[in-house]
Order: sequence, then C-alpha cells, then structure tokens
Amino acid sequence: MSTEFSFTIAATDGAARTGTIQTAHGAIRTPAFMPVGTAGTVKAMLPESVQSTGADCILGNTYHLMLRPGAERIERLGGLHRFMGWSGPILTDSGGFQVMSLSELRRITEDGVEFSSHIDGRRHWLSPESSMEIQRALGSDITMAFDECTSFPADEETASRSMRLSMRWAKRSREAFTERPGHALFGIQQGSLFHDLRAESAEALTAISFDGYAIGGLAVGEGQEAMFGVLDYAPGQLPQERPRYLMGVGKPDDIVGAVSRGIDMFDCVLPTRSGRTGQAFTRRGAVNIRNARHRDDPRPLDEDCACPCCRGYSRAYLHHVFRAGEIIASMLLTWHNLHYYQELMAGLRDAIGGGRLSAFMAEFETLRAAGDIEPL
Amino acid sequence: MSTEFSFTIAATDGAARTGTIQTAHGAIRTPAFMPVGTAGTVKAMLPESVQSTGADCILGNTYHLMLRPGAERIERLGGLHRFMGWSGPILTDSGGFQVMSLSELRRITEDGVEFSSHIDGRRHWLSPESSMEIQRALGSDITMAFDECTSFPADEETASRSMRLSMRWAKRSREAFTERPGHALFGIQQGSLFHDLRAESAEALTAISFDGYAIGGLAVGEGQEAMFGVLDYAPGQLPQERPRYLMGVGKPDDIVGAVSRGIDMFDCVLPTRSGRTGQAFTRRGAVNIRNARHRDDPRPLDEDCACPCCRGYSRAYLHHVFRAGEIIASMLLTWHNLHYYQELMAGLRDAIGGGRLSAFMAEFETLRAAGDIEPL
Repeated sequence: MSTEFSFTIAATDGAARTGTIQTAHGAIRTPAFMPVGTAGTVKAMLPESVQSTGADCILGNTYHLMLRPGAERIERLGGLHRFMGWSGPILTDSGGFQVMSLSELRRITEDGVEFSSHIDGRRHWLSPESSMEIQRALGSDITMAFDECTSFPADEETASRSMRLSMRWAKRSREAFTERPGHALFGIQQGSLFHDLRAESAEALTAISFDGYAIGGLAVGEGQEAMFGVLDYAPGQLPQERPRYLMGVGKPDDIVGAVSRGIDMFDCVLPTRSGRTGQAFTRRGAVNIRNARHRDDPRPLDEDCACPCCRGYSRAYLHHVFRAGEIIASMLLTWHNLHYYQELMAGLRDAIGGGRLSAFMAEFETLRAAGDIEPL
Repeated sequence: MSTEFSFTIAATDGAARTGTIQTAHGAIRTPAFMPVGTAGTVKAMLPESVQSTGADCILGNTYHLMLRPGAERIERLGGLHRFMGWSGPILTDSGGFQVMSLSELRRITEDGVEFSSHIDGRRHWLSPESSMEIQRALGSDITMAFDECTSFPADEETASRSMRLSMRWAKRSREAFTERPGHALFGIQQGSLFHDLRAESAEALTAISFDGYAIGGLAVGEGQEAMFGVLDYAPGQLPQERPRYLMGVGKPDDIVGAVSRGIDMFDCVLPTRSGRTGQAFTRRGAVNIRNARHRDDPRPLDEDCACPCCRGYSRAYLHHVFRAGEIIASMLLTWHNLHYYQELMAGLRDAIGGGRLSAFMAEFETLRAAGDIEPL
C-alpha cells in the first residue's frame, strides 16, 4: 500500500499513448477501460470474473454508494475494495454527474448541491469537501474532483459560468483531498464544445495541479463528430505526462477514435447495461440476441472470442435464456461484452506499442463494416 | 456413452443407504440432491459453478423446455447437455406435475392431457408417449414416467382413481421408452397418504419393472409429519436394489429425515429460489439477509462454509446488494445455498458410510436448534 502513484508512458503512436498507471492497489495498463461498478458490484459479474476479462481498474459511483449503503458504513466495513471483493484499483467519480441526472429537487449554490435521494427522497448534501471525504472513506485509489457536468447543449455563457464554478470546486477539491501514497486526485476539464473555454479550464486545472486529468462534459448527447472535434484539441491542452481520462465513453468506435487522439482511460456502462438488454458487442459490430434469427443458430456470438460465453454457449441458447428472462443471460452477455472491451483495449495497447495503430484501426473498421455473420 | 445404467449400494445404516448411480453422463453419488435447472439453466448459476458445489446431476423440466425453446429445437442443437453446457447426468421430469400446477385450460383423458401454455396460451398435448419422446429428444439420462400428481388433500377414492390412471400411464411410458445404454426410466409411486394405495402402486410399478422408483405426490402441502408417516413405509414397498427418489423435496430437515428412511435422490427449487428471495440456509438454520440486523455485520453467512459467497463477502455486503436489487445477490446466495445442500448430502453420505448417521443427525439438529449467530 506504499506504492507512489505514477504514470509511465511506454510508447506513443501519433497522439496515442500506451503505458502504466501505478496505484496503491496495483497497476492499470493504458489505454484502459474501467467497467462500472455502480453500487458496489459490476452488475451480473463476480469480481474475479471481471478481473479475468483483463480489467485492471473498476469505477465506483459516489452518488449511489453514499445513498446506499452509505460511505461511513463502507468505511467501517473496511473500505470499498474489501466490501465488494475487488483487490485492484478503484476509481470513484465525484457524485456530481449523478446528482444532476438522477436526484430530485436539486439546489446548486456556490457551496455545493443539496438534493433528494432518488431512492427514499431524503435530503443529502454534496460539495467538493464532502465528495473528497466520501471518496476517502470509500478508499478510492483515484478520486475525482467535484464538478458540475455542464448540460448539453449549453450556450457559451452558460458553459463558461458552469466551467468556472467547476474550476473553483476543483481548487476546493484539491485542498480538501487527503494525500496518501498511491492515491491520486484527478481534475476534470469542462467547457462544453468551446475551444477557448476548454483551454481556460485546462489552464486552471494545471495551475492547481492534479495527478491526472479527465475530460468531462462529453458523451452527453453531442454526438461522435462533435466529441471527436473536441478531442482533436482537448487532450493537447492537458499535461502530456499525466493520464487523460474521457469520462462516460463509450461505444467501441468512440474509444478507438479517442485513443488515437490521446486518451488513456475510459469508463462506460455500455458493455454491462447492454449485456442485460440483449445487445452483444463483437468485432463485427453489435448483435441483438433477442432477434429470432438466432433461435436455431448453434454458433457462438463470435467464433474467435475466448470468453466463457463464446466458448460454451450457442446463439440459440443465449436467445432462449434471454427470452425466458433468465439471469444467466445477463451473466453471459455481460461477461462477453466486458471481455470484448478488454480485448479491444489490449489490441489498442499492442498496436500503439508496435507503432501499428493505423493498421489496427483500419482492420477494426473493416471487420465492423463487414457486419455480423450471415444467418444460417 | 456406452456405460450401463446401474445402482450400487456401498453401505447402509438402518434404512439409509449410500452408493453410486452410473449413467451415460457419469456417476451420481447417493444420497444425491439435484439442483433444478427449469428452463435450461440452474437459475443465477453457471454450470461449472453448479458442478463446483458438488452436484453430480441436475433436473430439467420437460414442461418448461417443451414450451420454450421446444424439445425438437434442443435436439437439433445437440441435446440438453450441450445446449445448456452441463456435461453430467440430467434427470428430466415427465411434465405432468407442471401441467397441473402451471398450465391453463387442462383437459385430462385416459389418453393424456391437453393444456394451454402459461407463456403464450397455445394448445399442447402431453401423454406417456409424447413425454417419453420429448425426454428422449432432450437426451435425458434419467427419464421419469408420465403420471398424474394426485392433488392434496384427496379422499381415498380420488387418490385411488388418480393412482390407477398413473399406473396405466406408467405401463405406457415403459412401452414407449427407447432403451439406450446408460439411460434409465423411473416409475413414480402414487397413492397420497394411503398405505394400501401406496402398496398397490408399488406392486404395479414393480410388475412393470423400472430402473428406479420415485415417490410422488408428497411435498404437496401435507406437512412434514404426514410425509414422514408415508416415508416410514413407502421406501420399503419399493425394490431394495433400485434408487429411490423423493420428488420435490425439500427443506434440509426434510432431506435428512427422508435419507434416514431410505431415500436416495432429491430435487427441489428451494435452495435456488430462496437464494433469489434473500433466504440463506446454514448449519444454524435459515438466515434472512433482508433483515436490518445484517446491515453492519462484517461476518460471512457461515464462518465455516468454504463457498465463494462465504469466503469473499460479508452479511453487510449481501444485505446491501440484495436491497439494491443487484443480480450478484441472487448469484452469491444461490451459490451458497447449493453449496450448503451439497455439503449436507456429502455429510450424509459420509455418515452412512461410517455407520454414524444417528450421530450426524443429532449434530444436525443441535446446530439448527442453536440458531443463527448473535447479532453484533
């Protein structure tokens, strides 16, 4: 537990980088995809299964955990790692995003946000200081500064006002953060789609100095083209030698495009949530297992995939258990999707390490363009 | 796949026996508890996890599988073992019980039962002949004769009429059954709580000759005392040298009492269903994980249990994920419950083998009487 937090870049290929983040609970190979463990569980997966997909780090949601079972309770029980049985690194978000998207009766002031729990309606309070305290209690390896995720679309004045509030909160987050070896605090860039605001935000964060920098306020409805437009310049506004984390992203092609633009870390509910709604990700694009075309198909989702779902089960079986509402459908499809995402990240790391990112991206696109295997 | 079906009794202790059933897909150590894999999955478990609990054989439900995805489809896909990824023995019920408990618009004639699916209302037909054909298509190692499970309570005339219909159906089942090496057909004794009817049923079945004999029509609301009353004599009415299977049983103390009365095989949804509703079985009785007393309890369900749930997770965690409606709650509690049941069966087998069944039963009762550990 005495490891220093560090980020080492092993190789670059264009704007893309591959390397290793060291934390108190072990290493994170970058580019990294972090499965989301909202309420102390990566839904429908055991922690050892998550690890077996190749995931180094998972994400915990401060908002969900503070409401239930409560951060103090988790601290008394030995922290989030022990509570949920995950021994690797954990990154926690600040709670700000979910306060905006899930809670009710919000009142935002300079000081912080007062809100009602979506579970039982009770009043709660989040501020830079309380968010830091909660994330410390959880035992998070990577703590996120408390920010306001600027809603989309936002005019420049709104985006500016929101970003500047987040920058003041970033400073308060830094001051409230308890330094511990191997534990990091990341700042979050805002500024919506405005180049100048992104630059101002990056300068403000760099002046405060963080262990890593997230790009926030994207993947909120602006579309891939607009997102890539920001990613064409935003990573370059942030320190080269620190990890860059694109929050809440995304689809496989979002990730590939973002990695090629210099992003090192990702999180998204997509592979887990899709697993529970019958959508599987494969190298040849998405497969909707609910579709009747799979009913008699003895083939796996992807014949070249080594995950337990593809090694043991036919599309016909997955179709059946999904239609029958069986829990194993969520278990197998989630496992496959997380495996697919981690294979994608491993492929990206290898390609960057070998200077073959362009070729990797071309093959990625070609396979997806070919589409799913023909029905039998 | 050319193993002959056989049953070898290795040791007895009073009326209890321990031994081995050989099937085309491997051995079943008896007394055996078979987890229920209703619709091609033991709910919330991967097959390898079911196997790791020590289960040798699982049960598949003809009624559920014939309706969805359909027995012909499963046959085309290589049979139920391959379809669901279970390489060990599978016993299938005849469909009769669920037709009575789940389907609508039933019309029972001498020939069989016409009914409407509870899923989509379509009309279906089950008879001794069609049940044998469906179970053959599924690839069942142990096929159950098609019977009518006499409802409870039943007066002697009703029970007699129902039992005699089942005996005529048993004969037709035997004639329709396709002999294959390592595959068995079991007859089912009926007769409700009436000694003479049970005797008549046993004689009828023995005259037809089956590879094993089930005791049906129990665990249908008569209570443990009445059930044990029947089990005091019913096993002795059946051939000594064949496996005896008590269908749909039961709670841990039901099983212990039935084993001591000469039963070799059991199946029940209790450990799996309870796992999904927050009830855990332990050596010290049942634990309701929903209860607020577990909210801050860092201890596992059972400190002496070696299952993944008890090795990795606190009661506080299980309480949290259950209350949060997380799938992992069902996964972990089901795993624990199946592990507990299999440990119980292993304990019974060892005790019978060592001539220590009475001592085992006394300790079983003492631990349960002590009740759950004290709250912290």
